[in-house]
Amino acid sequence: MIPLTLPETAGFLREHDNYIMLTHRRPDGDTIGCAAALCGGLRKLGKQAYVLENPQFTEKFRPYLEGLTIPAIPDNAVLVATDIATGKLMPLSAEDYVNQVDLRIDHHGHDDAFGLRGYVDPTAAACGEIILDLLRLLEVPVDKPIAEALYCAISTDTGCFRYSNTTARTLRAAAECRDCGADTFAVNQVMFLTKRLERLKLEAYLTAHTEFYAGGKVAVSAIPEALKLELGLTEDDIDDISGFGREIAGVQIGVMLREVGSQGKISVRTSPAYNASAICAHCGGGGHKAAAGATVDGGLNGAKTAVLQAIAAEGVAL
Amino acid sequence: MIPLTLPETAGFLREHDNYIMLTHRRPDGDTIGCAAALCGGLRKLGKQAYVLENPQFTEKFRPYLEGLTIPAIPDNAVLVATDIATGKLMPLSAEDYVNQVDLRIDHHGHDDAFGLRGYVDPTAAACGEIILDLLRLLEVPVDKPIAEALYCAISTDTGCFRYSNTTARTLRAAAECRDCGADTFAVNQVMFLTKRLERLKLEAYLTAHTEFYAGGKVAVSAIPEALKLELGLTEDDIDDISGFGREIAGVQIGVMLREVGSQGKISVRTSPAYNASAICAHCGGGGHKAAAGATVDGGLNGAKTAVLQAIAAEGVAL
Repeated sequence: MIPLTLPETAGFLREHDNYIMLTHRRPDGDTIGCAAALCGGLRKLGKQAYVLENPQFTEKFRPYLEGLTIPAIPDNAVLVATDIATGKLMPLSAEDYVNQVDLRIDHHGHDDAFGLRGYVDPTAAACGEIILDLLRLLEVPVDKPIAEALYCAISTDTGCFRYSNTTARTLRAAAECRDCGADTFAVNQVMFLTKRLERLKLEAYLTAHTEFYAGGKVAVSAIPEALKLELGLTEDDIDDISGFGREIAGVQIGVMLREVGSQGKISVRTSPAYNASAICAHCGGGGHKAAAGATVDGGLNGAKTAVLQAIAAEGVAL
Repeated sequence: MIPLTLPETAGFLREHDNYIMLTHRRPDGDTIGCAAALCGGLRKLGKQAYVLENPQFTEKFRPYLEGLTIPAIPDNAVLVATDIATGKLMPLSAEDYVNQVDLRIDHHGHDDAFGLRGYVDPTAAACGEIILDLLRLLEVPVDKPIAEALYCAISTDTGCFRYSNTTARTLRAAAECRDCGADTFAVNQVMFLTKRLERLKLEAYLTAHTEFYAGGKVAVSAIPEALKLELGLTEDDIDDISGFGREIAGVQIGVMLREVGSQGKISVRTSPAYNASAICAHCGGGGHKAAAGATVDGGLNGAKTAVLQAIAAEGVAL
């Protein structure tokens, strides 16, 4: 990837046309909000621009994509990837185009050479912060739909400013979205203030079944495959459940196990005193210090045995 | 109350000394954060300043009050009330001083004449926004403890920027707190990202027992008095539970009933299409359009009958 400055990125977008925005696999608010906002902004500059349909778009984010999507990549399109960290995360609808991404805009600090050229700023909490700066450089008048897409991006990637990645820049970017007319409360209601009854039932199940070890320092929760059908859970309901155990008062290591066929998927979340990545490495997985994962054989029982052994190996007396 | 401008308020604080900060009954993050921040700021100006102990301070907020509190009001003290909307909300430790509050700083737009002089700005989402502006006018160097007290005030009164009262000013004030060294994530972890297991058990109970009417548009939840003991709930656990039903997808009118002796306390939360205050007026109570309350005789059953009749009287077919 040829690294560009932000003004060079703006220059590239001014010089070309026929843009297709790409979102990442299992798309979230940041990738969708960025694609929608940049697409809308480029249209305001008189460019033709679309967001490529992603078969994994969920209901919650559909309003941001209204009137912007296209089912397939047309010939001679300029491909722009927003918030796609690696080539492995290309959407299923564009897997074959991994070597043809003309411009990549991202905030993930990976060493992936993915993308012909691009701008990557790992200091941004959300890719949406970068897109806001870019639209300013392009002198795009940011209207309500663009501002709401950006606010969706910025707020969802920071847990509505609750997570540790939130900076003063994040909060000021959100303030700018409001200045530009975003109904931030309407976004918050959908993203942070409403839970489906099914999701509440999942949380109630986990509250009743979570097991505690090491005097309450370790919490292990498990979701059997049958529960999804039994409670009528969607992917949106299960989406961000991995943090459940970690967020119980006193818990320093929160483990979420998910049964997927004959395998057990392990998600570990830790407070700063512990290393989720080191724990998951014992199980053949990896990730970041505060959040990591692994997949093992033997379903939920296999996963539970493996992760407890791994936690013990990291020096926690269970 | 003689209304002051913000510069006049700053002038008053510069001219006097021996300050005692007062917090409101059932104190929250805004009243405590403001009292702590202003107390710390006045000390930096060389003034003697304390926060009056409030018998209702809860554990969660104790860190902000470290080294600042005094058990009783000394002679010749200048009393400053932060975030106290009416004389009826004076702390139990200063009930007899309701006519001796020298300065009132608040963001509640009531017509209460309470306080000898004061500055009230109802456009501020949190009183903390006003205190930040005031400390700027006083040229107080805002350090980490003051910035964290202000961030606690601003974030808790807006549900970490999720509620409809949040403005661009709110977000920029929070950004300023970060600029001044506030560890906003540490505050968020305690206030928004950690739940006691007992609280989760309360939510699980409510998930299992909430009743729905009008095709899911109305949700009625109830907390029997015995549940508090049974689940080991503290006031902090129950504190903000009134919104529980309203935040379930599809619900427009969320009712929370609480058994208190032979009485039933009704809390109603509504979406913009309904009027919580009008509903509670039928039960002899009142409040705001989106949030209101009432207390009736007959325990939980009496309260349930009364509130369902009131909702029907407001034109909802149950």
